[in-house]
Amino acid sequence: MSAIDAVGGIAAVLTTLSFLPQAARTIRTGDTNAISLAMYAMFTAGVAFWLVYGVLLSSAPIIIANSVTILMAGLILTLKTRAVLRARRSRER
Amino acid sequence: MSAIDAVGGIAAVLTTLSFLPQAARTIRTGDTNAISLAMYAMFTAGVAFWLVYGVLLSSAPIIIANSVTILMAGLILTLKTRAVLRARRSRER
Repeated sequence: MSAIDAVGGIAAVLTTLSFLPQAARTIRTGDTNAISLAMYAMFTAGVAFWLVYGVLLSSAPIIIANSVTILMAGLILTLKTRAVLRARRSRER
Repeated sequence: MSAIDAVGGIAAVLTTLSFLPQAARTIRTGDTNAISLAMYAMFTAGVAFWLVYGVLLSSAPIIIANSVTILMAGLILTLKTRAVLRARRSRER
């Protein structure tokens, strides 16, 4: 593995695993107030495109990294969407 | 541009621009409570490695996308860190 590959590998590990503590915090606290729905909607869609890109290129690192990330980001998006819908329903009452 | 490049381009635009609404929300509300410090510390460090990777590969798309993202992620990290330090100081009083 070249030094360039190592830098890319460290980058991929850090940006992929960074969503773990956010998902853990969101599950633990149930608090999504400061989280942007637009961010997670766009980000999850983007990661889905990265996943398709990885499949088209048959790139295992791209497929693996984005499979992990889409689970975390999709989970945070689901929790945020539920909170938004819950808040909307309680306003309508 | 091939269809594969187009899929990668859409992926890059979505995941890069997704941090804009989060940065805007954080600036507007000043609320960082639900945001994970560990996530933004790891993510910002990871994006810095992606930036170095882009420079080593002389890849303009990687450099441009990660320059935009590091600004947003770094801003959110700064606001979160300030909030954590402020909360710690007020607990110590």
